[in-house]
Amino acid sequence: MKILIYGLGHIGGSIALGIKKHSSTNHKLSFVDSDKKTLAMAHKKKLTNGFLPSDKRCTKEIESSDIIFICVSPSNIPQVLKKIRNCKTKQTLIVTDVASTKKDTISNARKTFKNQVSFVGGHPIAGTEKSGFENADPNLFKNRIFVQSGLIGKKSNKSKIMKIWKELGSKTIEVTPSEHDKVFSYLSHLPHALSFCLNKVATKALGKNKIEMLGGSSYKDYSRISSSSENLWADIFLSNQKNLITSINSSIVFLNKLKSALKQKSDKKVSKLIK
Amino acid sequence: MKILIYGLGHIGGSIALGIKKHSSTNHKLSFVDSDKKTLAMAHKKKLTNGFLPSDKRCTKEIESSDIIFICVSPSNIPQVLKKIRNCKTKQTLIVTDVASTKKDTISNARKTFKNQVSFVGGHPIAGTEKSGFENADPNLFKNRIFVQSGLIGKKSNKSKIMKIWKELGSKTIEVTPSEHDKVFSYLSHLPHALSFCLNKVATKALGKNKIEMLGGSSYKDYSRISSSSENLWADIFLSNQKNLITSINSSIVFLNKLKSALKQKSDKKVSKLIK
Repeated sequence: MKILIYGLGHIGGSIALGIKKHSSTNHKLSFVDSDKKTLAMAHKKKLTNGFLPSDKRCTKEIESSDIIFICVSPSNIPQVLKKIRNCKTKQTLIVTDVASTKKDTISNARKTFKNQVSFVGGHPIAGTEKSGFENADPNLFKNRIFVQSGLIGKKSNKSKIMKIWKELGSKTIEVTPSEHDKVFSYLSHLPHALSFCLNKVATKALGKNKIEMLGGSSYKDYSRISSSSENLWADIFLSNQKNLITSINSSIVFLNKLKSALKQKSDKKVSKLIK
Repeated sequence: MKILIYGLGHIGGSIALGIKKHSSTNHKLSFVDSDKKTLAMAHKKKLTNGFLPSDKRCTKEIESSDIIFICVSPSNIPQVLKKIRNCKTKQTLIVTDVASTKKDTISNARKTFKNQVSFVGGHPIAGTEKSGFENADPNLFKNRIFVQSGLIGKKSNKSKIMKIWKELGSKTIEVTPSEHDKVFSYLSHLPHALSFCLNKVATKALGKNKIEMLGGSSYKDYSRISSSSENLWADIFLSNQKNLITSINSSIVFLNKLKSALKQKSDKKVSKLIK
């Protein structure tokens, strides 16, 4: 099959390297990225069919592809969907993605493709604080979970995408888009929001040097993820805005309760709250 | 020298095993713990001079000690200080501690000892989510930081305690008690409060099974420290109550700002906040 990876960042790059290394099928891979340096880096790693989005050959690649992985940040997904719609794609084309929110992506795909192109929503639970193709790793998805969420078109297309993720070493799970977005507001987006929060208030109160010198393992674990790209995360937060606001509200309620138990110097109330 | 470890938990036990393994000086070690099982476990690890606090020999041990490490939870420190004061201790005795807040401990020691006994405040930055002697580790303090904070008595006593920590593998730093408590409200107590917060709101919204199945690395890093003992942490939180309330307040302010930027769907405002 001809597989096109659209966006050769940390996730897209790891998918490309992973398919090259682990897939039993002899897929033909190609790539699109808006950064020339990334394409050059990919070339060095023997990923050779790379194109800029502005390149005419990019359209040809889209039109001859069997599977397209969209691996750009959430706010750039709509324009990639439109670009695909405006090409004369194969009737059997399957478009899939890796975005960490699913309701928005699926509804965008539905609006743009008007059921003319198959779409399989996906979310590999494998992000780290790293970003960029320079940190891509063919083993990134080994022993991780791939969540399949949202489908436009035939069920068999879902299986084709999940088969690739299994070859990359992931365990696959199916969840509806609205359940997905609720769950990950608590398991991914809220932890990131709290990490950014800790990093901001601690840096403001203490300065970077003191943190560098005295931060223990609990602080390091917590602030690790706040070194993630702020633009990507602003994007992700906004794509799951409603659920994230709900989870932030619950956190504020909890913190106010904790504050009040501390003000009352009540050992019992504090213990009960954090139990 | 005769060293008594009062409280053979994760930290006290690790100090005992560490001194036994790493100290170049041939110290004579003894231990006090209120749990018979812990004393039996210690015996198996060839830490043989263990006593219950109710044991008459415990008083004798205190009276013949050159150094006493108080390694009980913060709320139990006052009663141990009183117990020591009521013994006929050596004039050269140095009492030291490992509590993660220092202002309270130093002022308690000052009130109780009335300058009759030397006290060297200490805080090894080496806590983990583990607790109890069963998790004690002679290498726990290797390449970690030991913060010396607060002193009653001669400066040379400070050096004696710091020498032991250096033998355990730690780098030593001196900080005033009020600075210490401010710094660690942000670097240790707030991260724990936010971790307990995440764990509570996520478990309430999703249930344990879903979290088990779908929690990625960011969630796991975050909630790791919330598996710490809630009684110990309620104790620690209350011992640094004022500073923790200040840092929780800053966090609530941050989260409210983030919520408002999300409500406005402002990419720029969200990015700027988390930068």
